[in-house]
Amino acid sequence: MIHGKNFIGSGLSAEGSVTFKTFSPASLEKLPEVFVQATEKETDLAVNKAVEAYQTYKRKSGKEKATFLRTIADEIELLGSALIERACTESGLPEGRITGERGRTTNQLRLFASVLEDGSWVEASIDTPLPDRLPAARPDIRKMLQPVGPVVVFTASNFPLAFSTAGGDTASVLAAGNPVIVKVHPYHAGTNEMVAGAIIQAAKKTGMPEGVFSSLNAIDFSVGQALVLHPAVKSVAFTGSFSGGKSLFELAQKREEPIPVFAEMGSVNPVILLPEKVKDEAAKLAVILAGSINLGAGQFCTNPGVLVALKSEATEVLKTGLAKQISMLLPEKMLHQNISKNFEQKTKHFFGNQAVKKLAESEHESSPLRGRPVVATVSGKEFIQNPGLAEEIFGPFSLLIECEGTEEFARVLKTFRGQLTASVWGTSADIKAFRKQIETVQEVVGRLIFNGLPTGVEVGYSMQHGGPFPATTDSRFTSVGVDAIKRFVRPVAFQDAPDEYLPDELKDDNLLGIWRRVDGQLTKEPLKK
Amino acid sequence: MIHGKNFIGSGLSAEGSVTFKTFSPASLEKLPEVFVQATEKETDLAVNKAVEAYQTYKRKSGKEKATFLRTIADEIELLGSALIERACTESGLPEGRITGERGRTTNQLRLFASVLEDGSWVEASIDTPLPDRLPAARPDIRKMLQPVGPVVVFTASNFPLAFSTAGGDTASVLAAGNPVIVKVHPYHAGTNEMVAGAIIQAAKKTGMPEGVFSSLNAIDFSVGQALVLHPAVKSVAFTGSFSGGKSLFELAQKREEPIPVFAEMGSVNPVILLPEKVKDEAAKLAVILAGSINLGAGQFCTNPGVLVALKSEATEVLKTGLAKQISMLLPEKMLHQNISKNFEQKTKHFFGNQAVKKLAESEHESSPLRGRPVVATVSGKEFIQNPGLAEEIFGPFSLLIECEGTEEFARVLKTFRGQLTASVWGTSADIKAFRKQIETVQEVVGRLIFNGLPTGVEVGYSMQHGGPFPATTDSRFTSVGVDAIKRFVRPVAFQDAPDEYLPDELKDDNLLGIWRRVDGQLTKEPLKK
Repeated sequence: MIHGKNFIGSGLSAEGSVTFKTFSPASLEKLPEVFVQATEKETDLAVNKAVEAYQTYKRKSGKEKATFLRTIADEIELLGSALIERACTESGLPEGRITGERGRTTNQLRLFASVLEDGSWVEASIDTPLPDRLPAARPDIRKMLQPVGPVVVFTASNFPLAFSTAGGDTASVLAAGNPVIVKVHPYHAGTNEMVAGAIIQAAKKTGMPEGVFSSLNAIDFSVGQALVLHPAVKSVAFTGSFSGGKSLFELAQKREEPIPVFAEMGSVNPVILLPEKVKDEAAKLAVILAGSINLGAGQFCTNPGVLVALKSEATEVLKTGLAKQISMLLPEKMLHQNISKNFEQKTKHFFGNQAVKKLAESEHESSPLRGRPVVATVSGKEFIQNPGLAEEIFGPFSLLIECEGTEEFARVLKTFRGQLTASVWGTSADIKAFRKQIETVQEVVGRLIFNGLPTGVEVGYSMQHGGPFPATTDSRFTSVGVDAIKRFVRPVAFQDAPDEYLPDELKDDNLLGIWRRVDGQLTKEPLKK
Repeated sequence: MIHGKNFIGSGLSAEGSVTFKTFSPASLEKLPEVFVQATEKETDLAVNKAVEAYQTYKRKSGKEKATFLRTIADEIELLGSALIERACTESGLPEGRITGERGRTTNQLRLFASVLEDGSWVEASIDTPLPDRLPAARPDIRKMLQPVGPVVVFTASNFPLAFSTAGGDTASVLAAGNPVIVKVHPYHAGTNEMVAGAIIQAAKKTGMPEGVFSSLNAIDFSVGQALVLHPAVKSVAFTGSFSGGKSLFELAQKREEPIPVFAEMGSVNPVILLPEKVKDEAAKLAVILAGSINLGAGQFCTNPGVLVALKSEATEVLKTGLAKQISMLLPEKMLHQNISKNFEQKTKHFFGNQAVKKLAESEHESSPLRGRPVVATVSGKEFIQNPGLAEEIFGPFSLLIECEGTEEFARVLKTFRGQLTASVWGTSADIKAFRKQIETVQEVVGRLIFNGLPTGVEVGYSMQHGGPFPATTDSRFTSVGVDAIKRFVRPVAFQDAPDEYLPDELKDDNLLGIWRRVDGQLTKEPLKK
């Protein structure tokens, strides 16, 4: 079934000599299928096919692209239980989670399809001419978002479907009118192959050009680097570690033509526990936080890695409760031996710091690949003096910072660098009393959550999954939700263009019926003649 | 009158030992006033004041910021003829041009004020909660654009008012809710001082915080570099040369926290002359093009530096006409001796290339600082083989590329890298026949003009003054027009936030009456309770 080859457009190719196998966290053994890493020549061919495809694909209407995206969703569903099984095997994630993730993936594709059908996302704007204006006539100027060209998508380890081959990045790149070249994650190359096949199938069924999608296997950095450095590649999307994202960003800035890299690199997602809330609900909070820390073995970019509280009797109750909860939690399987090793090493290194104390860890027997949930504590003073303690540990870990008084609390909150999220647990009175401190944190996050958990990132219109550096390399965009499409477009203005040259979105009659800004006012009306 | 000091917020400071004078292109002499370059300490102080001011300024309502911008415009007008005289003296530009530029500057400030009063620019988006959704409830998520913090503005040499101290960059930074630190252009430091004084005056009158605006004199690179490297600076706007913009961009990417640099670096703005149009209007085109080439001594970033035509009898007529026009044109004064020297050297170097021929130059006597208009020709074949010929020469220069047949024509059009603009001169039949070639060029420009000139960049809603690299460092944004504000904001999402914590733009009742996207649909209605 699994052939292990690269998809160069719809063609299969395996000319390379570097091969690899994926790994089953359940059996702790390598899976039998052999994947062939793409060669430099194959990489170049995939990009060139994308360049060629772009000439046709960029002209496809919103409705045509919507049909393509819906067909991808259908084809993924047609893979049935075989896809679920493969993704479970390669990730070690439970069936319920993978089935849910498939739903997220197909819903996401269909949401982008509906956005394309609606058509208003292109931000069409028309300034009508003023031929009699003095000292000079005002021309007719019309602007809309247009695609940019071939985009490279680096898939993430922790979401083998929803942030992978046909995930949010690929969906938004295709929706914007650009071809995609996927750099396959080596942990789930088999899952990728099945989904890539579904995309190719959908492209054929809906008449999309050869090369609109390619998928290149990779076990080392060579393929990713070659893609980022290819002069015809216009943009890059990445979800993963800080070191991976930062190095791709640097590579892309060194090109003769620098290109954007949208790297989502994770964060510690501070959880701010305000005093009245802690007093009222210490026991409940302990249960909620422990569950969130261990959810999916803590392998989420929005995992709550830091908790901030004021020292108090109530906080002691919370600590006792949290310790009890953590000690009872069952360690979950991590995605890969590299990830579990990394988790072990990082926590070990962390506890080498004299300033931190272990509050509790799971008392269940450890077994290979299982990430043992652990929570540490540190004083506010020590946390401020040890910036390294604010670094992410990918896995079921969290650090509780105990602050001596509101002044130290405020100072701790000021230390945080860019984060995807922060969560505030507080009563109405708490939120009023600590408004200034909350606003300090708001300044460095993409999403601010009240009395809720950062995990579970909604795919909608208003989601912001991003945040200032180092959470991402570009805080002006989101990688989840409808607005993710804006990463892969740029505005183009047309001055005094004949109506027949203009894209349909900008023609006088507005036959598409989209929202347009005409002389600064939003309207769906056609232009007056 | 002119004190030559730096504005560190509202305070005047001149602690440095490096001084400079500005220059009068009319008298060819230095002006008497001495300007003191900002020291490292003064630079740091200006940024720290901006950080402090940001805490207050970011909370100002749209109406309050609008009043500030309108008051800046009023204060600039109150400077009266003294400002016009100073700007004319320091730039050598004629009074009519400077008066027009002042109008552009104040109109721009008032346009941004009206955008703030309208309020809809923040892209407010609300996804209402679905508490009963399965398998999990959907939270309440609301998103809007928020300011980013202190921004550095590098002012341009060629627009001492409209792209300078209170120009489009400063106006859009302030409109977005961020403090500004201006790096003064040394060619018009006196003009800057007067305008900076007007801004400070407006800030005081409208109760804006100390430090919302600072202005630092600079004659060498030290001040600009220190500003770009300052950890509290969050974004940079620049208009100028490729080498200047690129080096600031690189500097900013090397920071521990990389920040955006919006560098508008100019381009050659190809003018595509289609055959039927040339046949119909060769003589008229010659007059129009010659005038545009010499407008403002060619010192515009949208100056038409390259003309592309098919070899034909009609093109010979155009050439003859163009030669005649150019030879009759009066050389205009350039902004500065450095700029005129640079123009002379670059054209000399250009004609060192055997592939190019001089078509014509102004036959008027040259005199110091006057840029002598000159047009060269090259064959399409030679142009393709000499990529250096596509580089910008800042001044009254243009290169006519003569193509042997439509295939060579198409190949020439494919060679262009990122441009601010391209202009197409064609009849309706031309545009149909050459649609594919025009689309090739559309792919690399920010603005595509039909039967018009690229100079004269409208400040409106639909302007795109930008374009792919190397025209700018970020093709996703414009530096002119209302949407320039989007450079200095980022989206922030609020999840399940209490209504009293939310910014007014996102509160249930929509008392501001702005357009909001509610569950994907644009509306001005309040949320249903």
